[in-house]
Amino acid sequence: MSTPSNGETGGRRPQRADARSNRERILKVAEEVFGKGGRSASTEEVARLADVGIATVFRHFPTKGALLEAVLVQRFDRLRAQAEALLHDTDPGEAFFGFFSHLVADATGKIAITEALLEAGGDSGGDAAQASDGLRRAVGGLLQRAQRAGAVRDDVQLPEVYALLVATSRASAHAQFEEGVRDRMLTIVFDGLAPLGY
Amino acid sequence: MSTPSNGETGGRRPQRADARSNRERILKVAEEVFGKGGRSASTEEVARLADVGIATVFRHFPTKGALLEAVLVQRFDRLRAQAEALLHDTDPGEAFFGFFSHLVADATGKIAITEALLEAGGDSGGDAAQASDGLRRAVGGLLQRAQRAGAVRDDVQLPEVYALLVATSRASAHAQFEEGVRDRMLTIVFDGLAPLGY
Repeated sequence: MSTPSNGETGGRRPQRADARSNRERILKVAEEVFGKGGRSASTEEVARLADVGIATVFRHFPTKGALLEAVLVQRFDRLRAQAEALLHDTDPGEAFFGFFSHLVADATGKIAITEALLEAGGDSGGDAAQASDGLRRAVGGLLQRAQRAGAVRDDVQLPEVYALLVATSRASAHAQFEEGVRDRMLTIVFDGLAPLGY
Repeated sequence: MSTPSNGETGGRRPQRADARSNRERILKVAEEVFGKGGRSASTEEVARLADVGIATVFRHFPTKGALLEAVLVQRFDRLRAQAEALLHDTDPGEAFFGFFSHLVADATGKIAITEALLEAGGDSGGDAAQASDGLRRAVGGLLQRAQRAGAVRDDVQLPEVYALLVATSRASAHAQFEEGVRDRMLTIVFDGLAPLGY
């Protein structure tokens, strides 16, 4: 593990650490590139912006689908960690509604990546599906806490709440809303989730 | 108009009326075929089930995109007419919420057709966009009446209500909801639309 790992510097460095940092940089750049979507989103563009050769990208991710799936896993895992951190928030209602809004605002990139994955022939199953389940469970935890705190009505369950989360996320990602429409749409949903009689 | 109207009889016939009935039959069948989506949805399949030659389909609709756009226009116009009829309903709240539910339940076919149109290279602009605007305006009329009757809170406007309608429609069309999830999702939205204090 002490062979030169980078042609440009010619120095001797620990290859494993180098490979890991390459992998992380590629993933970070790939999330930005594919999250924006559009025509210029390609593995070549990722390699260029990550400052590595295309061969290095393919060594870590043998196919475009593998790269996109890893990007989705990274994104779901990060969101799950954020949700889990909020499980300790002192205001369970604010934690739940705030995270709901955060997910909807964050959706555009996620959906662009998912669509790129489907286009690349991936099925968004496997690791990404598992990571997505992890996020869903974490949101379920936030919902339960908010219900126990009396901030969300107790006659709703995760399936319909998550369906609304996915629905409003997709709408935000696809539609060109006028200023404020997304927030006013969420206000209606949040009022519908408020305890009855409020 | 008493001449035979079907080519197989060999008689002279009023071509224009015949062409109109062919066109209507093709559109009706195309809505069913493309509304179901899937691999078998093709112009050939439409011709077969409408019992006309493929040349007849292409005489009325020069491209697959033109056929799909006409199907969408027909669908939007029918829904708009239904909404306009409900503008005279004696229960404006029931008319609004009932039509909202109807649109969401009806969404699967519409979205399959829209996706087929995009795939065929159409842009769902033009006539379909105009017809879609007509439906939106009619829904706006139902909303306004429901608000005047006190069945919907008066601080919401059509853009966010329509955004929710589109969001829940797409979710219903794409997701494989468990039994009852769609209705429970709509219950949350409808409660959010109820007048404050209810």
